[in-house]
Amino acid sequence: MYNIVYSQGGVCLSDGFFADGISAGLKKDGANDMAFIYSDVECVVASVFTTNKMCAAPIRHFRSMGDFKSNFIVINSKNANAMTGEAGVEDIKEVLSTCKDSVKNPIMSSTGVIGVRLPKAKIIEGMKLFDLSKKDSNSASKAIMTTDTFAKEIAFNVKLDDGSSFNIGAIAKGAGMINPAMATMLCFITTDAKVSKSDMQEALDEAVKTTFNAISVDGDTSTNDTVLLLANSKSGAYDKAAFAEALFKVMHFLALEMVRDGEGATKLVTYKVTGAKDDKEAEIAAKALSDSLLVKTALFGEDPNWGRIASTIGASGVEAYEDKLKISFDNLCVYDKGNIYFDAEMEKKCAVVMQHQKFTISCDLGIGNGSFKAYGCDLGHEYVKINADYRT
Amino acid sequence: MYNIVYSQGGVCLSDGFFADGISAGLKKDGANDMAFIYSDVECVVASVFTTNKMCAAPIRHFRSMGDFKSNFIVINSKNANAMTGEAGVEDIKEVLSTCKDSVKNPIMSSTGVIGVRLPKAKIIEGMKLFDLSKKDSNSASKAIMTTDTFAKEIAFNVKLDDGSSFNIGAIAKGAGMINPAMATMLCFITTDAKVSKSDMQEALDEAVKTTFNAISVDGDTSTNDTVLLLANSKSGAYDKAAFAEALFKVMHFLALEMVRDGEGATKLVTYKVTGAKDDKEAEIAAKALSDSLLVKTALFGEDPNWGRIASTIGASGVEAYEDKLKISFDNLCVYDKGNIYFDAEMEKKCAVVMQHQKFTISCDLGIGNGSFKAYGCDLGHEYVKINADYRT
Repeated sequence: MYNIVYSQGGVCLSDGFFADGISAGLKKDGANDMAFIYSDVECVVASVFTTNKMCAAPIRHFRSMGDFKSNFIVINSKNANAMTGEAGVEDIKEVLSTCKDSVKNPIMSSTGVIGVRLPKAKIIEGMKLFDLSKKDSNSASKAIMTTDTFAKEIAFNVKLDDGSSFNIGAIAKGAGMINPAMATMLCFITTDAKVSKSDMQEALDEAVKTTFNAISVDGDTSTNDTVLLLANSKSGAYDKAAFAEALFKVMHFLALEMVRDGEGATKLVTYKVTGAKDDKEAEIAAKALSDSLLVKTALFGEDPNWGRIASTIGASGVEAYEDKLKISFDNLCVYDKGNIYFDAEMEKKCAVVMQHQKFTISCDLGIGNGSFKAYGCDLGHEYVKINADYRT
Repeated sequence: MYNIVYSQGGVCLSDGFFADGISAGLKKDGANDMAFIYSDVECVVASVFTTNKMCAAPIRHFRSMGDFKSNFIVINSKNANAMTGEAGVEDIKEVLSTCKDSVKNPIMSSTGVIGVRLPKAKIIEGMKLFDLSKKDSNSASKAIMTTDTFAKEIAFNVKLDDGSSFNIGAIAKGAGMINPAMATMLCFITTDAKVSKSDMQEALDEAVKTTFNAISVDGDTSTNDTVLLLANSKSGAYDKAAFAEALFKVMHFLALEMVRDGEGATKLVTYKVTGAKDDKEAEIAAKALSDSLLVKTALFGEDPNWGRIASTIGASGVEAYEDKLKISFDNLCVYDKGNIYFDAEMEKKCAVVMQHQKFTISCDLGIGNGSFKAYGCDLGHEYVKINADYRT
């Protein structure tokens, strides 16, 4: 057995990890726009990147390094270094060549506008401002924000039965372009657990499926999506199950934070699909719901339009039948196998549920045992405002 | 050779066809909400319906009739008769049992709110108001509108080389939920061409691919999508190529009218993808662009954010490479095989293109010979407003 305890400290909770954010003048308002994460000993690295074929230069740079240990990540916001070709990768090499001597195999990560070369001079000046002895995870989490309205960090201390313990923490950014197949989200996780690279990659791949790949703000998939996990083994402690669960908790928390911060979002909705032919079909149906513009706008309008939910399930391509389907808003069943329980009174009750910041829409397809939970938000005027003129 | 000439008259241009719209009190404002199309001789019927698994009662009723000739379609707006089970089909039978004696194998079609039983009493009263000698296509086209802001009709007279001629005309509705895989769109086409059922179905299936299935407003697929084509042979004239082309012209015109009327849309954008591995991949990429929320909101903001276009192509899953891609706004190339032609001056020029009501975004993937044109619109505040509270 083990005990997972919420802790302050973000990426700096783990022993030997340091982080901070600084302003390199990339953001017009002078807010922090560059961050680093540093470990005083080398780390094994696990990663998950976007499936976008136009993946950005930082990802191609990372992949070109082969198998390596690292102790340093530098992150900039405002510029994605995407669609910048080989020149974009060369820019990264030039920036990283200015790292301090204690840095081994540095990694770069970027988020912001696509198709503009990195403002290299400013970023290299910014590198000089980094103080590797700082332990300010919160400042780092703020520096990587783009359209985020709040910073995202989390950490846990994991106590094992033998009295040993390890830490795991993370910072993340992401509020738009969040998509079931990874999104413009960056997440950097640090741990002092004594975990092997293979265990770490396996746990990361597994956790991504039900966390970052289960959320949706607008169904688009970015060029820059990145999850990086660094482990420096300094605690000497490890338990496979405890590590996997703690990692899941870190990622699940941050995934829901991203949905909650979805551009213009006012609600966090869980789409629980059960009774599907198999888990894969449940996932397709749940993600179809969380991606549907018509469902999202109905949520924003607090309109319990269950017909759109049925229609979206029907359009998703999964096996589904009108006379087997059941639809509920929280515990209020509005439709069950051909019976419509949706009169004026029920409509009022459902509208009350939808006024909550969090609620669950459940669809039982009544066919098999497949289930999946997806997470989404509503889409309102703010989304349009934010995205209609993002570049300027 | 043949000559296709634009004509007035909509579904009533063809010899022997009659149509009209009336108010049965379904729409609160007293506007027309029921329409009929009638032919004084029996017609062969071709059809294409939604792929939504929760397809509405009118579609299930049509399918239950097997192979049949018909001379009557009744259409109501405000209620989709979807998710109403077998009772929904029984309601249709009851309504259609009140048809006049001259009517053979009547067809019903519905559009509106999902999950509410048909207001049968009102509709049966409405049936009594139909005057089958009326030739008012425009009035019928208005009666089938829901969120449409303008009525949609078109007709052509087709002159063949031997001096004979036939007519083809249609009415349609659709302004939201329009999707590449059919949408809440209804389209009713009449012709007096002497066309066989098999020729007609073949031409219809072919034309749907590049017209109604190439447009997108919000990527959702409705429970009620219907295209019906009735031919009564009264002209005695027919030419296979001329018929196919005239049918395509009818459907292409109405498809673009639907996009132009997309809920809250201010622009009609053609997404022309060329150089894809094959036509199927070109179609996937083009539809990904026309469906992307981030692209749509950038259009609304008149922001030439070509990075989002590249990112959407990359996320669509088709074979694509950063160093082979070319992107243009009308004839302005902003990115070509790794070269970015997007300075402040070009941005201004592109923004001017985007101020137009119609323009083309071209993406050459630089791989093979596959090509496809999709049509889409922008997404603005009006879309959110219309859909946040559709039911009330």
